Order: sequence, then C-alpha cells, then structure tokens
Amino acid sequence: MRHRPFLIIISSPSGGGKTTIRNRLLQVVENLAYSVSATTRPKRPGEIDGKDYIFVSRDKFLKWIEEGELLEWAEVYGNFYGTPKTPILRYLSQGKDVLLDLEVNGKRSVEFAFPGRTVSIFILPPDLETIKKRLIERGTESGEALQKRLQLIQDEMEHAFEYDYWVVNDTLEQAVNRIVAIIEAERLKADRALYAPLRKGLTI
Amino acid sequence: MRHRPFLIIISSPSGGGKTTIRNRLLQVVENLAYSVSATTRPKRPGEIDGKDYIFVSRDKFLKWIEEGELLEWAEVYGNFYGTPKTPILRYLSQGKDVLLDLEVNGKRSVEFAFPGRTVSIFILPPDLETIKKRLIERGTESGEALQKRLQLIQDEMEHAFEYDYWVVNDTLEQAVNRIVAIIEAERLKADRALYAPLRKGLTI
Repeated sequence: MRHRPFLIIISSPSGGGKTTIRNRLLQVVENLAYSVSATTRPKRPGEIDGKDYIFVSRDKFLKWIEEGELLEWAEVYGNFYGTPKTPILRYLSQGKDVLLDLEVNGKRSVEFAFPGRTVSIFILPPDLETIKKRLIERGTESGEALQKRLQLIQDEMEHAFEYDYWVVNDTLEQAVNRIVAIIEAERLKADRALYAPLRKGLTI
Repeated sequence: MRHRPFLIIISSPSGGGKTTIRNRLLQVVENLAYSVSATTRPKRPGEIDGKDYIFVSRDKFLKWIEEGELLEWAEVYGNFYGTPKTPILRYLSQGKDVLLDLEVNGKRSVEFAFPGRTVSIFILPPDLETIKKRLIERGTESGEALQKRLQLIQDEMEHAFEYDYWVVNDTLEQAVNRIVAIIEAERLKADRALYAPLRKGLTI
C-alpha cells in the first residue's frame, strides 16, 4: 500500500550514536532519503560535500536565510547550521520519506513547517551510568568538565517528553530494528495510507 | 524497555481473515494475550470453551450485563456476544498487551472504557475485485444475495476511517508482519514507555 510520505526527525543527547543509526537506516529501509544539513563550518578530512553536510559560504547561507530556503537554522560557536527546504520537497514529491537529524529547536521548526507530516524519535542511552562510564573511558573530560557534560546530557534528555517515540540505544542492531518498526507502522497510519478503494481523487 | 500495556483492537469487513491473523500474532508476539469473547450461542464441533469463545448461559450473560462485567455486548440473530472485563484487567496488570477482535460498535465501547490505551487496526482486502472473486469462488451466494453481501462489505469498509492503522491482507505473512511492526512501534510511544531515568514513581 502506498502512503503519503512524511518526515522522520531523530534527536538524541550528545554522543547518543545518531550518525551510525542513521547510516544503517538508510541501508535497510526502502524509499527513505536523508536530508543533509547545510553548514558554513570548514570541511574536515574525510567529510564529503553533499553527504555529511552541504558545505556553503557564509554569504550563501545568509542569502538562503533571506530567501526562506532554510526550514530551521542555528549558529553554534560562530558557524551556521541549517536545513534546506528544496531537497526535502523534492524527496516528498518522489514519494520518499525523509530522515532528519535535528536538535530540539530544529525539530520544533520542522514540525511547524510540516503539520501532521512528522514523526519524532528520541534516542536514549540504556541508562545514565552507561553514559558516565563511556565518558570516563573516553577520557576527554574529567572532574568539573565531566560533571558539566553529564548535567548537559541530563538536561537534553528532558526534551524526550516532546517526542513521539523513545528508542533506547542498547545495541546498534536493536535500536535500528526499533526505528524500522516505527517507520513501517507510521506508513500504515490511516491518515496517510493511499488505499485506492477508500481514497478517490487524492493527490499529494 | 518496559511499557504501560495497552489494547490492540482488530476489525475487518466480513471474511477479512481476522481469525487466522490473530492466531499467528499470538504465536509470534511476546507478552501478548487474547481477550476471548463470551457468547450464548451453542458451541460448534471443534470449538474449545475459553479459547474460541467463553460459552455461557443466557442467564449468566444477562447477569454479567447487570453487574457491569461486559465492556461491550451485542445481540446477533438471537445470540449474545460480549467482552468480559476481568480477564483484560488481569492481563494488563501482568504487563501484557491485549488483543481484541471486535466490530466497530465494540471498538467504540472499548475505546471509551480505556481512553488513551487502545490502538485500532482495520484489516482491508487487497481490493474489491479480490473479495468479489473470493465470494463467487466460494459459491455460497449468487445473484441478488451476492450483490447484497458486496454492498455490506463496502459499507463496513467505510468504518476504516475511524481506525488508527490500515493493514491490507494480501498475504497472511505480510499482514502479520505489518501488525507486528505496529505493536512494536506502539510499545515505544513516549506516553507509555517506562524508561527509568525519566519516569520516577510511576505505577500502572
């Protein structure tokens, strides 16, 4: 059964493993496209333009803001990040669901832009102890900085309450399978199912 | 992740293949219980009391109605059919999701009894031609009776619009897989997920 395509917004606290999950989802789910974010920050070694980010100049980014091309955008440490509208509209018109990797403010803007056409998923760590252990093992922060970082993650986790689904990232495979089930189920929602005997004359 | 258990209501037009789907679901989905309907109609050969139906006397059924034991009930061709409350409450308290096989009026009553704790699925034939072919091949109806039956099915299909999900029954395996995905996804809904770091002091 065909369906009216929708947007899948994935968020998680820092270090939640979103990127790995996203890449795996794109491999296993049919008719799913990834909405690549645009940024003004310099490309890092190994990053591919148009895949990891759309790398643009500050001037171009500001022009996009002015033209209304960005569904949402933010400035982080002097660099701009945002979600271009055109590729998303193109994917939807091709009947593809669109995966977006956003923080909570981006999620709110995209939901406002596409009422009734978004599904939001918050990825959670198995528990707080696991996060603490991972951070200590990584050894990049300690003492006060570690405490600060843990507090930040706890604060970010509060946003979970405004998402539709909660997925615990205990193992990559399980987390991916859960999101696959969510996408499959959402494609069967009565308000987007294109079942010909009951839907006459609908265009999207 | 544990979740607050919920009710899964399945409906379909006559001859939609609900019973086969239900039996398969109970085999493949963990922590799922079936709410057996009660009836006053005589037991048919091969039917098992407590599995196919709870077979009760007319007196007992009327007593249950009076005591408020039935979440919904109806009289069809002189026999009573209904949904007892006690087993459902027991399953829920055991943390099991409960599968119910209901027609549209039963669905409405159960949704009223359990606000926010139901998920409704309407099973649809691949198309109207398939149904017509199946009925003709079965040969139990023809001419005017066949036309009447087809009209009834079309009328029943209109109820699909008040269900949460639409599942096309093209093959048993695909239909079952789709419902499995729906149940898995619904278990991850933020408003029923029991994720300890974010839910303190909740009892169900």
